[in-house]
Amino acid sequence: MANDNLTAILYGINDIRLEQTPIEEPDQDEVLIQMACVGICGSDVHYLVNGRIGDFVVRKPMIIGHESSGVVVKLGKNVKNLKVGDRVAIEPGVSCRTCKFCKEGRYNLCKDMIFCATPPVHGNLRRFYKHAADFCFKLPDNVTLAEGALLEPLSVGVHACKRANIGISSKVLILGAGPIGLLSLLVAKAMGASRVVITDLSQSRLDLAKKLGADATLLVKKEDAESHILKRIIELVGEEPDKTIDACGAQSMIRLAILATRSGGVAVLVGMGAPEVQIPLMNALVREVDIRGVFRYANDYADALNLLATEKIDVKPLITHNYKLEDTVQAFETSKSGQADVVKVMIHCN
Amino acid sequence: MANDNLTAILYGINDIRLEQTPIEEPDQDEVLIQMACVGICGSDVHYLVNGRIGDFVVRKPMIIGHESSGVVVKLGKNVKNLKVGDRVAIEPGVSCRTCKFCKEGRYNLCKDMIFCATPPVHGNLRRFYKHAADFCFKLPDNVTLAEGALLEPLSVGVHACKRANIGISSKVLILGAGPIGLLSLLVAKAMGASRVVITDLSQSRLDLAKKLGADATLLVKKEDAESHILKRIIELVGEEPDKTIDACGAQSMIRLAILATRSGGVAVLVGMGAPEVQIPLMNALVREVDIRGVFRYANDYADALNLLATEKIDVKPLITHNYKLEDTVQAFETSKSGQADVVKVMIHCN
Amino acid sequence: MANDNLTAILYGINDIRLEQTPIEEPDQDEVLIQMACVGICGSDVHYLVNGRIGDFVVRKPMIIGHESSGVVVKLGKNVKNLKVGDRVAIEPGVSCRTCKFCKEGRYNLCKDMIFCATPPVHGNLRRFYKHAADFCFKLPDNVTLAEGALLEPLSVGVHACKRANIGISSKVLILGAGPIGLLSLLVAKAMGASRVVITDLSQSRLDLAKKLGADATLLVKKEDAESHILKRIIELVGEEPDKTIDACGAQSMIRLAILATRSGGVAVLVGMGAPEVQIPLMNALVREVDIRGVFRYANDYADALNLLATEKIDVKPLITHNYKLEDTVQAFETSKSGQADVVKVMIHCN
Amino acid sequence: MANDNLTAILYGINDIRLEQTPIEEPDQDEVLIQMACVGICGSDVHYLVNGRIGDFVVRKPMIIGHESSGVVVKLGKNVKNLKVGDRVAIEPGVSCRTCKFCKEGRYNLCKDMIFCATPPVHGNLRRFYKHAADFCFKLPDNVTLAEGALLEPLSVGVHACKRANIGISSKVLILGAGPIGLLSLLVAKAMGASRVVITDLSQSRLDLAKKLGADATLLVKKEDAESHILKRIIELVGEEPDKTIDACGAQSMIRLAILATRSGGVAVLVGMGAPEVQIPLMNALVREVDIRGVFRYANDYADALNLLATEKIDVKPLITHNYKLEDTVQAFETSKSGQADVVKVMIHCN
Repeated sequence: MANDNLTAILYGINDIRLEQTPIEEPDQDEVLIQMACVGICGSDVHYLVNGRIGDFVVRKPMIIGHESSGVVVKLGKNVKNLKVGDRVAIEPGVSCRTCKFCKEGRYNLCKDMIFCATPPVHGNLRRFYKHAADFCFKLPDNVTLAEGALLEPLSVGVHACKRANIGISSKVLILGAGPIGLLSLLVAKAMGASRVVITDLSQSRLDLAKKLGADATLLVKKEDAESHILKRIIELVGEEPDKTIDACGAQSMIRLAILATRSGGVAVLVGMGAPEVQIPLMNALVREVDIRGVFRYANDYADALNLLATEKIDVKPLITHNYKLEDTVQAFETSKSGQADVVKVMIHCN
Repeated sequence: MANDNLTAILYGINDIRLEQTPIEEPDQDEVLIQMACVGICGSDVHYLVNGRIGDFVVRKPMIIGHESSGVVVKLGKNVKNLKVGDRVAIEPGVSCRTCKFCKEGRYNLCKDMIFCATPPVHGNLRRFYKHAADFCFKLPDNVTLAEGALLEPLSVGVHACKRANIGISSKVLILGAGPIGLLSLLVAKAMGASRVVITDLSQSRLDLAKKLGADATLLVKKEDAESHILKRIIELVGEEPDKTIDACGAQSMIRLAILATRSGGVAVLVGMGAPEVQIPLMNALVREVDIRGVFRYANDYADALNLLATEKIDVKPLITHNYKLEDTVQAFETSKSGQADVVKVMIHCN
Repeated sequence: MANDNLTAILYGINDIRLEQTPIEEPDQDEVLIQMACVGICGSDVHYLVNGRIGDFVVRKPMIIGHESSGVVVKLGKNVKNLKVGDRVAIEPGVSCRTCKFCKEGRYNLCKDMIFCATPPVHGNLRRFYKHAADFCFKLPDNVTLAEGALLEPLSVGVHACKRANIGISSKVLILGAGPIGLLSLLVAKAMGASRVVITDLSQSRLDLAKKLGADATLLVKKEDAESHILKRIIELVGEEPDKTIDACGAQSMIRLAILATRSGGVAVLVGMGAPEVQIPLMNALVREVDIRGVFRYANDYADALNLLATEKIDVKPLITHNYKLEDTVQAFETSKSGQADVVKVMIHCN
Repeated sequence: MANDNLTAILYGINDIRLEQTPIEEPDQDEVLIQMACVGICGSDVHYLVNGRIGDFVVRKPMIIGHESSGVVVKLGKNVKNLKVGDRVAIEPGVSCRTCKFCKEGRYNLCKDMIFCATPPVHGNLRRFYKHAADFCFKLPDNVTLAEGALLEPLSVGVHACKRANIGISSKVLILGAGPIGLLSLLVAKAMGASRVVITDLSQSRLDLAKKLGADATLLVKKEDAESHILKRIIELVGEEPDKTIDACGAQSMIRLAILATRSGGVAVLVGMGAPEVQIPLMNALVREVDIRGVFRYANDYADALNLLATEKIDVKPLITHNYKLEDTVQAFETSKSGQADVVKVMIHCN
């Protein structure tokens, strides 16, 4: 194994540098991974641009990256589920395994979670990285390493759709056709949703959504009246949606999620937005529309991988841009441009 | 049976009149009931004072009253579950029985619900009233007719506690020690909650809560800082509550419900408040604190009755004032006074 | 409307006769239906051959048929959900709407259920038949009346798959490739099951299963050792199945359902078999394999229809034989022959 | 700390010997515990008498004991949840923490579980024993160490009642008034069950059940006809029970559990019995009575402790006999005598 371990480090706002770092030695339950693909997530861009997300502040240089895959090159001595040469997707958070949340199966809520590229924990946009073996998922031959990296946001989509209890009876509204919205669309369809309608501010995003299987799309404009959008949604869904997934986080979309969902339905809010919002909450309460958040995922990676392995869904059209690790700065420039044709930027590490 | 059918009719804002109305004939699946007790609900007072609740407007004279019990005096020809002389509690909403909500067991969301004293449907504060036999619950000997009338708000408490999934592991916070808060307290304890803490603006309400079994109480003042109340709640619960039931509806309490509940917990919001609120929603979403409303109840009357029949809870201390039907106007005056010592006002119809 | 109401009446064992019966007048909440298609169900054949199923005994002449569809020709005065000319699938059981089961959403368990062709209730293999309007489901243009009749067994499959909690993570074993097994296969795939393996004694049934989307099939012989079949199942599923649906009812298959399912999984047993069985129950108990029965369906018709309306599944290949109402006796002969190429026999009433 | 580590070792059938063993050193996430109380479980007696339970065979000398409590005397270097001097109950199984079952919250099904006194893993009937710190539960002052040891079978009762979904609406039948049956009774009442009826072959056991809160008891005799017992059960419950917990395992009781439970109810089978049984399974299937096993517990210890800490239940009356560690052989003699007055035998280790 070479000594090259080029690594993308976020030093501060708009300051990513590529530097060599030591290659770490895997502990007994870990594997060393030659990194293959790392996708850029909205949160990565957020740290780059703002230096923080809520209470998580980048106080010292932090390696960026967490949507990732690679090839196992070395095994810790207890590792049995993997072998050298295995291509794996990396679930980027390792939980404490001993708290109530971990023991009850909701490890995403573990307060001692070690999660890649959430300060102060380093991410894995580098040539080599070690990780807990049980949070690595072996890819079958028909799943590429780039798809493996996409398992991360796909798992968010899986978690969102599970939280929404989507089934064959579900008419689903998705607000926002960014990566999470689009992946939720794919998962909702795979779960048998009978109709999925998706909205966005960008027609090109909606065109992609259509290509991915949306039953109908709705282009919304910031100046559109709430009542107007609501009316259009009901028309396109055919009735009030059973389930709404907000993948935006904007107050206006949270409001729509509440107002559009049918009585007794579920509004799952995935999007990150302002800490405080003004919403017609009473409308949801008296109609028993349940409001549920989504924080990452738990026990969803295997399901996400199943969707790819069985070829039920195709996530490759979401990868619109590819860069080498050496071009990480440019990759982030593209990602943060916010242009409609940029969906997912993928960085190739080797 | 006499022809006297004195009836309390709401003619408009602050205008209740007692008048004779015809005694109705029960249909084949109905029973005629000689009314015994009718409790005054916050919604009744709201209609009296404001003439409306949201979109429900009292446009023409409406008989008031829906927390009720009585004695069966006549049976429709198909009725088999009751007999003349049975003392019954009356579940005041009769659903359509044919829509998706009814067939799926969530009949409280039925859009064709006929619900006593929700305009334009008449209530049952009168001497005689007919009702669907299957929505009448026979009281065993050890349950009084006054308790029977209290089954209505008790069922709201049961529904709230079920929506919160309260169990033997639950540490519960209840915001507000009015009738719904106090009844939720009793139900939460009956479901095995390991600790219940309740808050209110009134010390006398909290004293009653304590008597009813609250493990701790917290007197809050309108001027208290949110962070201060939050800190005190955590101290009194011993940790973040698993479940919070807001029985107020005030924005400040909805905020507390969100902020206080532990990650992965449930905030059930029963209280009616302003249509729009400003809340720290993102805090709930990223901690997967589920937010659930409560609209009346469905399949909860039998459970509520079980609690009384098995003497697991005692609701009688909540009845602080009693009036005759003839003194209905005065009863409502007492109820709307909002004095801390007024919890539940009961009107006796015969 | 003509006066012809040719009707298939089961007079006794192996004695079906075609006779004229009066056309009934729909009650206020009913519609009169000109019958189109009636499929023959295993239970129909069972009554024909044995005169009974368990405690349900054909004591007097009974009109047969319950997997059905037709065209609305007359409306009861309260009917609003349908209009004359609507093509409808008929959910053949009408529940009491007032008991605990009905109110809780499990109306299939209603003890006062009126169910077509379950003695002593008449079925609907006739030219004209009246039915509760809310148990009729309007077919969209892209769903044929024959498919509408197949909604009945399809709803059993939907109910079975819901009882099994099938989702995108599920590896499913189905025992038996008769109509219920095959329809469960289609539903499981529509719910996103990642792998479905199905077994049968007949290769031609398995060939059809393969065509319908089975990931693998296993031909079993009556003389095969339990351990051998078990081993082959695990090989074909790739691991122990998460969910097993037994659509046979034979003791040998119930045993396999228990032994094959992974710890913590679910064995759903749909098939009807002997009242008493000898099974390795302890094996299921200590591995917490839940055992769940299926009795018809509740709230599943709309979902089944959605699957057809959205063209997620194609049930038409199951219809292997078609007969006119006049040829009912011959249709039943075909159905009871038990030949492997006979899957579903459809009778056309007009 | 002394060097005395007297230890009870099962050498073979009816061969328990007391010997000194080395005191182990706690690993970094473990604590060393000075053992206080160890209860004798039916499984311990089973190993003593038969040398095996199913596939678990005592092939070499094994330290016995797993219902236990003690005092922390030494901390591994990473331990933060406990301190020296803490009195703890010991959850005797430590799961792998990395498999699907562990991550999903059903760690009792973990195939790599290390469980005290399940061969070949040693138990903890000794003076000193080390254990994973996160599987030790600190006892509050009002819970004795003997009660702490009882948390183990109590957790089985908690798990059984949770599997049965017992709530305030539940009418519960418990078959068998041994320790698990009695503890399930206590838990069912704590969860708010509206009525609990319990059966046994021994009147003295039933008298204890009555004292512990059973609403009714039924003495059954081996020669009683199934139909007769069934009839008596329905009379005593007042209707068919919603939930049945079989704490016996005998075929006759499993049969009753199925036949007695109401349609749509749940039969939880905790008792260990013969591998194969002959049962009226079809009766359960067509009435959708779900059959669920119980294997130990998962995430139930904290709840069980809550029940004791809040003094909702009193388990002390179950401890009928006490012995010193030195008298272990005699303690087991008492336990295996099967006399009706022997409920729980407790061994005190220090």
